[in-house]
Amino acid sequence: MAHSEIKALLFDVFGTVVDWRRSITTEMRRFGEEQGIDQDWEQFALDWRALYQPAMEGIRSGERGYVKLDQLHRENLQQLLLAYGLEALTKAQLDHINRAWHRLQPWADTLPGMNRLKKDYVLASVSNGNVALLVNMAKHSAIPWDMILGSETAQGYKPQDRVYLHSAQMLGLEPAQCMMVAAHNDDLRAARALGFKTAYINRPNEYGEGQVNDLKADQTWDIVGEYMTDIADALGC
Amino acid sequence: MAHSEIKALLFDVFGTVVDWRRSITTEMRRFGEEQGIDQDWEQFALDWRALYQPAMEGIRSGERGYVKLDQLHRENLQQLLLAYGLEALTKAQLDHINRAWHRLQPWADTLPGMNRLKKDYVLASVSNGNVALLVNMAKHSAIPWDMILGSETAQGYKPQDRVYLHSAQMLGLEPAQCMMVAAHNDDLRAARALGFKTAYINRPNEYGEGQVNDLKADQTWDIVGEYMTDIADALGC
Repeated sequence: MAHSEIKALLFDVFGTVVDWRRSITTEMRRFGEEQGIDQDWEQFALDWRALYQPAMEGIRSGERGYVKLDQLHRENLQQLLLAYGLEALTKAQLDHINRAWHRLQPWADTLPGMNRLKKDYVLASVSNGNVALLVNMAKHSAIPWDMILGSETAQGYKPQDRVYLHSAQMLGLEPAQCMMVAAHNDDLRAARALGFKTAYINRPNEYGEGQVNDLKADQTWDIVGEYMTDIADALGC
Repeated sequence: MAHSEIKALLFDVFGTVVDWRRSITTEMRRFGEEQGIDQDWEQFALDWRALYQPAMEGIRSGERGYVKLDQLHRENLQQLLLAYGLEALTKAQLDHINRAWHRLQPWADTLPGMNRLKKDYVLASVSNGNVALLVNMAKHSAIPWDMILGSETAQGYKPQDRVYLHSAQMLGLEPAQCMMVAAHNDDLRAARALGFKTAYINRPNEYGEGQVNDLKADQTWDIVGEYMTDIADALGC
């Protein structure tokens, strides 16, 4: 396909750009050792993440007004304290744990791919993360965004239409001038239905050995790759 | 003063980061030569800019709902067509001229200063420019933003309080953790009244030889410098 129309690449972040599971697990292992708390911290990361979709659903449904993902993460963390022996921690310690999402590390192929793509395209997040979370993550991990868009700027949560549409509109672009890059078929399905171009990156290890969804592309997305560098190859960067 | 509390530097853009007068003049001189239209293009740049404050005032006053600066620039350009012999241009040509604001060039000291500051601080625009204008300008001129904030994300125009406050809030910061950097005393006055730190850069040639305002700092701002690199020096970057 011809890609000359595309001006911006819009990225899902959690799982696509960064490896949240390993990042949270590594931080918590270190924290657990310091505090003398011995737990299965990989399971903790998976359990924390499992509360993510239900928490957003309350806002998507209109049951609750918009709140930032930082707040949802904090509420979800609260639910895990007892099960993981964290109930005696101070507020400052819990806030520090909550901000582990601000310190997520990219997959090994992410920065090599994005730094090539940045020369020819506007690179913007279209993530359910809030602005501060993504700004701090970018500073921490050198992610070369041109702009941070998504949930907070659109006041909604993917896959709500307005998150994609408002992001394109803020860049002064039509959906067809934007390519959504994600490791999740449902994210691309929502974007394609609105006229966006689509690129799938396979991250079969995002959830570890037990991963059941998104083990491969389930449609003929415009680009399908194993690594971020494959997207750069496909776009001739 | 101690600056250890400061996490983010928030920048005015037109006049502070970029030299809009020389950029617009240079583009229009080239365009005029190509089109055989002989005009005083520096005066054109000044006249176009002179329509900026009155156009925003209609929105600040509530007389008109929020529209992006791109649209205000386009309406203002329309008012100048006859006086500058541009009335026969096509819509595509006028749109190209309007997007000259997306191609403004930094002052010579801007990038050396900002690239030093970026290592230690979050760098965000807090400009009356819209997001697409500032994203495109950053791509064109290599301005190293971590985030683009201001008018469009806050749905207002400086010096309205909410533009400053919403920008800090999006970064997850208190006003006292942010320093507003501007070449305009009134911008810093508005920010200081809300609790922001302030840095003044002197740009006595922003409007050319006839400049009457902002020829020097009119208060004891937290930092006062002649160049962006002076701000980096003062902050120990």
